[in-house]
Amino acid sequence: MEKIAMIGGGSWATALTKILSENGARVGWWQRSKDDVQHLRSTRHNRRYLSSVAFDLTRVFPSTDLEEVVKEADWLVLAVPAAFVKDALDKLDRDALKNKRIISAIKGMIPGKNLLVTDYVAERFRLPVASLGIVAGPCHAEEVALEKQSYLTIGSVDHQLAEDFSQLLRNRYVKAHPMADLDGIEYCAVMKNIIALTCGIAHGLGYGDNFQAVLVSNAVQEMRRFVHALNPQPRDLSASAYLGDLLVTAYSQFSRNRTFGSMIGRGYSVKSAQMEMNMVAEGYYAVKSIYELNKELKVPMPIATAAYHILYEKISPAVELEILKEKFR
Amino acid sequence: MEKIAMIGGGSWATALTKILSENGARVGWWQRSKDDVQHLRSTRHNRRYLSSVAFDLTRVFPSTDLEEVVKEADWLVLAVPAAFVKDALDKLDRDALKNKRIISAIKGMIPGKNLLVTDYVAERFRLPVASLGIVAGPCHAEEVALEKQSYLTIGSVDHQLAEDFSQLLRNRYVKAHPMADLDGIEYCAVMKNIIALTCGIAHGLGYGDNFQAVLVSNAVQEMRRFVHALNPQPRDLSASAYLGDLLVTAYSQFSRNRTFGSMIGRGYSVKSAQMEMNMVAEGYYAVKSIYELNKELKVPMPIATAAYHILYEKISPAVELEILKEKFR
Repeated sequence: MEKIAMIGGGSWATALTKILSENGARVGWWQRSKDDVQHLRSTRHNRRYLSSVAFDLTRVFPSTDLEEVVKEADWLVLAVPAAFVKDALDKLDRDALKNKRIISAIKGMIPGKNLLVTDYVAERFRLPVASLGIVAGPCHAEEVALEKQSYLTIGSVDHQLAEDFSQLLRNRYVKAHPMADLDGIEYCAVMKNIIALTCGIAHGLGYGDNFQAVLVSNAVQEMRRFVHALNPQPRDLSASAYLGDLLVTAYSQFSRNRTFGSMIGRGYSVKSAQMEMNMVAEGYYAVKSIYELNKELKVPMPIATAAYHILYEKISPAVELEILKEKFR
Repeated sequence: MEKIAMIGGGSWATALTKILSENGARVGWWQRSKDDVQHLRSTRHNRRYLSSVAFDLTRVFPSTDLEEVVKEADWLVLAVPAAFVKDALDKLDRDALKNKRIISAIKGMIPGKNLLVTDYVAERFRLPVASLGIVAGPCHAEEVALEKQSYLTIGSVDHQLAEDFSQLLRNRYVKAHPMADLDGIEYCAVMKNIIALTCGIAHGLGYGDNFQAVLVSNAVQEMRRFVHALNPQPRDLSASAYLGDLLVTAYSQFSRNRTFGSMIGRGYSVKSAQMEMNMVAEGYYAVKSIYELNKELKVPMPIATAAYHILYEKISPAVELEILKEKFR
């Protein structure tokens, strides 16, 4: 029986815990909130996310004790917002992840460090890159709860790791496959939140579906340029791990990034949009990291640049979109 | 002043007539129905499509006299359903289009002949390929009526023709640009209706957004394989003429192809879906042409094949989607 430490209590952590535990794995499920853990233990449901899903508590072990959860596991699955990764893992000893395999389910970068989550974890815990992977693919957690057909991709330089984790995920409604591209998948997953956020800004300003289709098409090209500059290798951006993931986010009415962007487009300040939503959109932090990374790379990134100007330099969304639309074709 | 013959009275013909006439062109507008032409002449509005748009009748000349409309024009814009092209042009003399430039705004193939519209017209009227172009791009006609920012691509082997027609279209809310790829754009425009139809079938069967994102990603790859087999040249399928056009159709709740597919997915027969909708989805005819064309090419086309089996061989949509989902990744 594979032993997994699930780090995080959000919707994606909840969906992955459902898939993994129903496939027979033992999941130690770390969450920060004592109340949430207590609620899970007594009701079998996560009260905040996908609350319809009932967990089998002979396989799922909610806990607030991170060290214990990690110690018992062969796999660590990271599923907290990128901004909380540093804090969440802070207590762990530098050797705590030795000989474990780490899967990031996070689509964001470590703020302030401009590092991918996998790069940060590898550095912080002195892990070889072959012990790390990313789970990506077009996947609303809500549809996993409903057991709708979904596809996941596990990116890792270690094929065996990617195949092994794919195996843990495959079931009646989940197809999973390994891919050799770790960095490309992870950077694209970060970028797609920026794109969805920008789609939201355009929507909030009154741009329509015609424009969004052009924005997403141009976004694929921007993502390709950027990822290629960082990590040149042949990759087909129309694979579902890249394009599919982008589509499911950019076209989702439920995407937090899109919703956040839409409020910005309608004239909310960043602060009031964050207060109103009572949460943080990954794309907000991601755009700063990507923008700063690109200062050296100097890849043409009109979409990320527009989003950065709007969110961090208080340039009017209308003005930035006017500039952006001239660059599209 | 450029003189244009607009052939067809549907929503796309109406949107293009608005753009072209408001840019100063003289548009002879052929429609089959005397009543519709009369209504246009007396009210300035097309009563059936985009009925909010008022036309300037000093520039727009609705008529049922095809030969007259064609004779006076430098440009012919074809905007009837592909299935009606043969009939619509039947009366014209073989030399009627000599020295004129032809733009197809049709996203379908000539049924029974498995020919692109431009190929059929070139053959029927003995025209050089350099006199033909296609207008494509992600563009709901409804958003043109609302003057929402849109992008169009003119594909032609003749750069000057493509640039000249782009020039006729450009305005405050329309950006247009030429591309050298005629066949590729036209085949992709045909394919996207098949994809949208299949997205509809999946939706009708209860598949969700995760699956649709994977379907569209796989569709891009299928389109690339097919177009490359027919007409190998370097092309980036993420350009808005290809991917954008696909997205705006596949993700539109208003797409007739998607709606038609959705009824098929919910168990309607082809006949009853057509009766219920009181119109024909281009994708229904397109899939037969593409399937038959591919009998010789033998390109792996799982999506088009599934749609063909469902629509023409009465195989259960549920069964075909089960097969299809195994082929995706």
